[in-house]
Amino acid sequence: MNLKWSTLEHQMQEHGIQSLLITDPKHVYYLTGFLSNPHERFLAAAMTLGEEPFLVVPALDEEAAHAASDISRIYTHTDTDNPYLVLNQALKGSSGTMALEKNHLSVARFESLQEHLTFARYQDLGPWLQDMRVRKSADEIAKIKHAVLLIEQVLKEGLTKVKEGVTENELVAEIEYQIRRLGADGPSFDSMVLFGEKTALPHGVPGTRKLKHGDLLMYDIGVYADGYASDITRTFAFGEPSPELTQIYKAVLEANEQAIRCIRPGVTFASIDLAARTVIDQAGYGEYFMHRLGHGLGIDVHEYPCVHGKNEALLQAGNVFTVEPGIYVPGVGGVRIEDDIAVTPDGVEVLTSFPKTLTILE
Amino acid sequence: MNLKWSTLEHQMQEHGIQSLLITDPKHVYYLTGFLSNPHERFLAAAMTLGEEPFLVVPALDEEAAHAASDISRIYTHTDTDNPYLVLNQALKGSSGTMALEKNHLSVARFESLQEHLTFARYQDLGPWLQDMRVRKSADEIAKIKHAVLLIEQVLKEGLTKVKEGVTENELVAEIEYQIRRLGADGPSFDSMVLFGEKTALPHGVPGTRKLKHGDLLMYDIGVYADGYASDITRTFAFGEPSPELTQIYKAVLEANEQAIRCIRPGVTFASIDLAARTVIDQAGYGEYFMHRLGHGLGIDVHEYPCVHGKNEALLQAGNVFTVEPGIYVPGVGGVRIEDDIAVTPDGVEVLTSFPKTLTILE
Repeated sequence: MNLKWSTLEHQMQEHGIQSLLITDPKHVYYLTGFLSNPHERFLAAAMTLGEEPFLVVPALDEEAAHAASDISRIYTHTDTDNPYLVLNQALKGSSGTMALEKNHLSVARFESLQEHLTFARYQDLGPWLQDMRVRKSADEIAKIKHAVLLIEQVLKEGLTKVKEGVTENELVAEIEYQIRRLGADGPSFDSMVLFGEKTALPHGVPGTRKLKHGDLLMYDIGVYADGYASDITRTFAFGEPSPELTQIYKAVLEANEQAIRCIRPGVTFASIDLAARTVIDQAGYGEYFMHRLGHGLGIDVHEYPCVHGKNEALLQAGNVFTVEPGIYVPGVGGVRIEDDIAVTPDGVEVLTSFPKTLTILE
Repeated sequence: MNLKWSTLEHQMQEHGIQSLLITDPKHVYYLTGFLSNPHERFLAAAMTLGEEPFLVVPALDEEAAHAASDISRIYTHTDTDNPYLVLNQALKGSSGTMALEKNHLSVARFESLQEHLTFARYQDLGPWLQDMRVRKSADEIAKIKHAVLLIEQVLKEGLTKVKEGVTENELVAEIEYQIRRLGADGPSFDSMVLFGEKTALPHGVPGTRKLKHGDLLMYDIGVYADGYASDITRTFAFGEPSPELTQIYKAVLEANEQAIRCIRPGVTFASIDLAARTVIDQAGYGEYFMHRLGHGLGIDVHEYPCVHGKNEALLQAGNVFTVEPGIYVPGVGGVRIEDDIAVTPDGVEVLTSFPKTLTILE
């Protein structure tokens, strides 16, 4: 039983839980190493107190589950089996309280569970997993680094297609081509490339806008690789930028660097957000930085913790999150510079390494 | 109130339901025309008997919802509002039984609903929508035709990159590049390109296999456009194929054409499957056609009806489904030819038009 299962077992003892059931495929992966999309079929990892954890998988995934996971008890069901009966047998008549994922489980599945299992009560275990996921292991950080490495290669290749008259959609298509060519699982969110005045829209959608001299270009892209996400933003100039855009770029870069300098265990998430915000306020652009500084990164591209001014929780070694200050001036343009970082026992490791100095592409 | 809502209202009257709640974003789109991914935010379409239907949307989607839908009652919630209170107010204290989507709603959301609404009972409405979706309107068929048009353009462009030594992954990357470039919403499933012996795997995964003289190439690809899916398979030869592969191709093409000839309202889905299967049996390859003939196509790429030998339901005008017989001989190769068709009042309209005669690409 690995450390993650031991942590869950401890929670079960603490909360008087007899069995637990994990049904979100990302959490099955997180706990067992078996990454799979079961579509409509039933997939679960489960444990009864005092017993080894086990998997219930579609029969066609049995071999893959054995190969990928360190779980030796694997139960299978075919399309004509009732997976809840298989689960019930594997649980060996456990009763009392079951902890399960209320945010993931559908009402229809929950009703089937209640019909076939013998528990008196069902409790949500969502918060336990959220707490666990906030501190990444060395192995998880290595996977995020690999996803970062891939997206930085993708960005480097993607930039070779930048030329006057190219559209945002064409550069997005090139990014997604490279994501596929380099062997990532896929984009970790809708790849974003924006030009000129559209860079001032924090949630702008790429379209048929053509690149012209004097435009900024903003890339916000990421991949999943081995089930872990990367997420990077870089802003470039196509031709010499205006003095105002140059000043905005400088303020955002300073905010990014100042926030990163403040990262270490024991300080609050709010203080990191504030460090960046103060730089941008002092440059006179405070009202144009209207989003949080960043978000956790791991098996989801947006996960806990939230890096914003009201999060008084303390940074811990193993936290991985984005640092992405931005300034968006309507009609002028926007700049965002986003890095992925890991909190180390004595400070910070910046996982992204793509250059951040203002680069003129033309 | 459009025809779809009237159909639902009729179901409500029949089943003694006071209110209904639609939470699957695809079904919100199906009923209101508003297509959106709300991520973690609450999005719903709802109706109380005798009142106009309404939408509950995140505040940032208000404008888009007004622009896209014919619903005039739109209620909004910000990230600090409780969306269940907003919903409760809009329902005006309706009580009795609510019908909702038990396959889509999470247990956590259902518990919040039960806490804030005043219904005594909750019933599943999944089967009603499934019945409605099986018969497409002219507008829906036009959208599927557009998705077909796009994927056929994608395939035509993708074929220009076929050359000796190219990998399956590279051709997949090109397909996804073209999907993006031509402005589709995205692929409707994982794009598949397989070469040579891998074409004999009905669920093969593209990889680094290189194309060589004498290989078959199989493309199974589709897009979503305007929320509707297309799905097409064509198999090509790279260089002169062996006599056995030529014979296999001929049998699959005949099976495809024979099945299509049998399509008209009032015959069973089973009979269409049988028509194709008989051709392949008679060619001596019956044991190598080990999947159903096809599947419904619409706002999901796989939806009801299932076109297989046990479905004794009758075809109706407005059904849209795939016809995709295949023969997969291990160690030799596989051929699948997949068309998308719509059942018309007096026969069939084939929505796909990409040539089906055996094409030698080299």
